Amino acid sequence: MPITLSDIRQAAERINPLIHRTPVLTSETLNRKSGAQLFFKCENFQRAGAFKMRGAANAVLSLSDTDRVKGVATHSSGNHGQALAKAAQSVGIPAYIVMPRTAPEVKKRAVAEYGAEIIFCEPTLQAREDTLNQVIDRTGATFVHPYNNEQVITGQATAALELIEDTVDLDVVMAPVGGGGLLSGTALSTHYLLPQAEVIAGEPVGADDAYRSLQAGRIIPSEQPDTIADGLLTSLGDKTFPIIQEYVKEIITVSDEEIVSAMRLIWERMKIIIEPSCAVPLAALLKRSDNFSGKRVGIILTGGNVDLASLPFA
Amino acid sequence: MPITLSDIRQAAERINPLIHRTPVLTSETLNRKSGAQLFFKCENFQRAGAFKMRGAANAVLSLSDTDRVKGVATHSSGNHGQALAKAAQSVGIPAYIVMPRTAPEVKKRAVAEYGAEIIFCEPTLQAREDTLNQVIDRTGATFVHPYNNEQVITGQATAALELIEDTVDLDVVMAPVGGGGLLSGTALSTHYLLPQAEVIAGEPVGADDAYRSLQAGRIIPSEQPDTIADGLLTSLGDKTFPIIQEYVKEIITVSDEEIVSAMRLIWERMKIIIEPSCAVPLAALLKRSDNFSGKRVGIILTGGNVDLASLPFA
Repeated sequence: MPITLSDIRQAAERINPLIHRTPVLTSETLNRKSGAQLFFKCENFQRAGAFKMRGAANAVLSLSDTDRVKGVATHSSGNHGQALAKAAQSVGIPAYIVMPRTAPEVKKRAVAEYGAEIIFCEPTLQAREDTLNQVIDRTGATFVHPYNNEQVITGQATAALELIEDTVDLDVVMAPVGGGGLLSGTALSTHYLLPQAEVIAGEPVGADDAYRSLQAGRIIPSEQPDTIADGLLTSLGDKTFPIIQEYVKEIITVSDEEIVSAMRLIWERMKIIIEPSCAVPLAALLKRSDNFSGKRVGIILTGGNVDLASLPFA
Repeated sequence: MPITLSDIRQAAERINPLIHRTPVLTSETLNRKSGAQLFFKCENFQRAGAFKMRGAANAVLSLSDTDRVKGVATHSSGNHGQALAKAAQSVGIPAYIVMPRTAPEVKKRAVAEYGAEIIFCEPTLQAREDTLNQVIDRTGATFVHPYNNEQVITGQATAALELIEDTVDLDVVMAPVGGGGLLSGTALSTHYLLPQAEVIAGEPVGADDAYRSLQAGRIIPSEQPDTIADGLLTSLGDKTFPIIQEYVKEIITVSDEEIVSAMRLIWERMKIIIEPSCAVPLAALLKRSDNFSGKRVGIILTGGNVDLASLPFA
């Protein structure tokens, strides 16, 4: 069943008590530097620090009463894990987060602060999936995949819904692409509400599976992805790929150097904290600025969870 | 002549085309951590990156037509120098900024980008004043002191004016204190518009001249001030001290460790970039949280100009 505009609007209403309506910011300096008119949807100010709260909240609030009491589970040491923990905590149900032993302390702490039970595993894909399955067998919790999940995609779509509601006549809507949850949701909202606008994604060269998948017409997973944009290491799923294939006009790839440079511009000029993954669409726009000249471009800034003790600025 | 509410309102109208009306942000997490209700006036989003733009703009726009064409001059390698350069550029008049040869490259570049003429001097107080006087003799430019200047104080007062307009029933208004331009302006606006509220300042222990001056009842300048809050190294002036003496209830001093800890909280929880100087009032509030429990506290976040290549987070 395709996700409809009505699904997205219902999700927006459902998650409203658990999320912030984040502001749309502009910057004269960045408009001048880019030659375009930029509208930044600041999901770095979202609860738990990233847009992931939208999808996680929608998944949690869409559970049946019997499933709800058993809680939710996922494998993610990143923003999705934190968001799912926070969403579960907000409605008073258990969350089980499978994380590799080797995850950074700061991420372990964040998930624990939101009251989730952390189950550590060896840092391999196999161990992660085995451990998750054991947790689900033991608890009856519902697995909430970080992106290959319709409730999650529908929740992420509400970011673009708000962006479009809070701006006028965007020509382009941009988001980064990792597993494609945000991008497919963004593409759907834009298709329904602003059908004449183009959806364009940015992707790190070092994790360019979405770019290659679109070229090939089938999912080509990343092998050993390597990029500073650590929120975008995952590959497209069978629920996100078809939506992206249908509604995304182009994926522009950018180097880590271009990502850090765009990230630095946003920190220095807008005085807001964003993750490297967040800077990917602006990096893509600046790389191809001729294509965006004079256009009104909405950009989803995805999150602000960085480790202040290890920043990429020299 | 004392600065009146009408002066402040006129300044607000005068500088309106040159400044941003900055947002007032809140944070559930910081409310929880502090036990107070905090309202942050985000001058880190101000043009040129700091509240200094208000005073500089008011000084520039208050010049007579004959003075205006000759331009403005100051000695400042910090936010006031950048703000004066930007204000002068905005109305198309010259700005002459005297800076020590030893100033960081990033600050030289910022002033130069705003089109000011930089005049370098040796890094001594004497050289700075001599050089400034030579520049003024040569150009006829008007000296705009960073804080001991009525137009500047009146301009800075507009930050608290907006904060009070955009909030309801504040019990306390807080600002940091260096030379006292912002604090005296804040105290005046609060006195006129919210007479029942208290004005409380934060000051670094390593530059506690305002604290000691209030105790002594006369200006006691800092000698060799030393603090990470490099916007607060200056000492009170004869125009700022009397206002502070009359309208500021208390100055709370904080250590550099407390400042960095408060700065880190704002970066991590609010995802916005602030300078160390900016974090001083929150550090003061957290140090004395019992005194602020349950109160509605407005805090002016003064600026966001930091060198990303040298941050105090370990």
